[in-house]
Amino acid sequence: MAEIIDNLNKKGYKIIQDEELYKFNMDAVLLADFARAGGEDKVLDIGCGNGIIPLLMHDRYSPFSITGVEISEASADLARRSVSLNDLEDDIDIIHDDAKNLAVHFKPSYFDVIVSNPPYMEAGLKPKAEAVSVARHEIELSFDDLAKVVAKRLKVGGAFYLVHRTYRLVDVLAALRAYKLEPKELRFVKPFSDKQSNIFLLKAVRGGKPFLKVLEDLVIYESQGVYTEEVRKIYER
Amino acid sequence: MAEIIDNLNKKGYKIIQDEELYKFNMDAVLLADFARAGGEDKVLDIGCGNGIIPLLMHDRYSPFSITGVEISEASADLARRSVSLNDLEDDIDIIHDDAKNLAVHFKPSYFDVIVSNPPYMEAGLKPKAEAVSVARHEIELSFDDLAKVVAKRLKVGGAFYLVHRTYRLVDVLAALRAYKLEPKELRFVKPFSDKQSNIFLLKAVRGGKPFLKVLEDLVIYESQGVYTEEVRKIYER
Repeated sequence: MAEIIDNLNKKGYKIIQDEELYKFNMDAVLLADFARAGGEDKVLDIGCGNGIIPLLMHDRYSPFSITGVEISEASADLARRSVSLNDLEDDIDIIHDDAKNLAVHFKPSYFDVIVSNPPYMEAGLKPKAEAVSVARHEIELSFDDLAKVVAKRLKVGGAFYLVHRTYRLVDVLAALRAYKLEPKELRFVKPFSDKQSNIFLLKAVRGGKPFLKVLEDLVIYESQGVYTEEVRKIYER
Repeated sequence: MAEIIDNLNKKGYKIIQDEELYKFNMDAVLLADFARAGGEDKVLDIGCGNGIIPLLMHDRYSPFSITGVEISEASADLARRSVSLNDLEDDIDIIHDDAKNLAVHFKPSYFDVIVSNPPYMEAGLKPKAEAVSVARHEIELSFDDLAKVVAKRLKVGGAFYLVHRTYRLVDVLAALRAYKLEPKELRFVKPFSDKQSNIFLLKAVRGGKPFLKVLEDLVIYESQGVYTEEVRKIYER
């Protein structure tokens, strides 16, 4: 194990990371910023890794509850210890289980908000460490599986926020539509303003009326190694 | 009838328009520029209106043949007369028929390239003049119908180019995927660089491998009433 404790934000939240496991990256930070939750909302993060999104969303929204589900035991353990380290055991629950088993833990339509930074590559490429591989590839959870799970656990009118790779946009939109998770807001993220988008943020609403809004692009760098003002603000929250 | 003859480009192509029918607009010009065709290609334009796209594509690519199909008799008549006016009867055919009847005219997989600027609003709103209404609303042709017709008449590996409204992106991508017309290149068009996209251009390939590229946005105006350099170049071709 090669664990390190990182500071997460100005308020002093900390997160435990492991160099050998899948470390959180900017995708998760952008998603936690793009997602919205009210003070009474029950929030679920599917594939929560080391707990980065539950911690950031608790910080920003203090929703009624946040649950993270994670299939990798090592990652779920890290997430639980990060929750303890910040004394947030009353607010954030980490469940070590397959997202496809959520029926054991929650009633249908239980959640107001679901977020996910799912594995973005199709299954099939060579695994590295197991937890890394499961986090990056659709080995345990295809996007279709994920959409099905979300449609079952999200209430009608509830929002699903996700981040995914731009080249897979068609897979994502088609699967969401098939499960009546209507895509409503799409925001492309690009490394530089003159480069093509590599990832996107999406809000879908269960049972929503078809009408998509494409928001202004989110640009990460204004020059090599220098974040844009928007990204600096996201990290400073 | 209130007909006018407009100059279409530098080469002196002319087009007959009717104030009471659906006049071509920028969407068609952008689509004719986004689409590509080789010298040996058989090209089809579904819902060709007054023939703007066949004329522009003939000008740019001189493909083997261009066929326009148009359900409105008045519009098809205008298109035919514009073709004659430019002495292009040997290169451009205009068929007055419902696109759903293309089997009467062509074998399956006949075309190398298909383009369409389809009606972009769902059926249901009040008709104005009939030809205008059919051109704007999915009265005669839903997007699903269109995708089905394209999949039948386009050869495997052939390209389908279309323009549509951004708010309907999910409908379009899901229908194309369902008919194995794989979306490959997506370009959002926006009026100003700081505004949201209202239309998009899309290239799909019949039987293509799933992998979407989102191209740089196409911006129309650099300031009120002043086209960007890219749009000026498109009009100057």
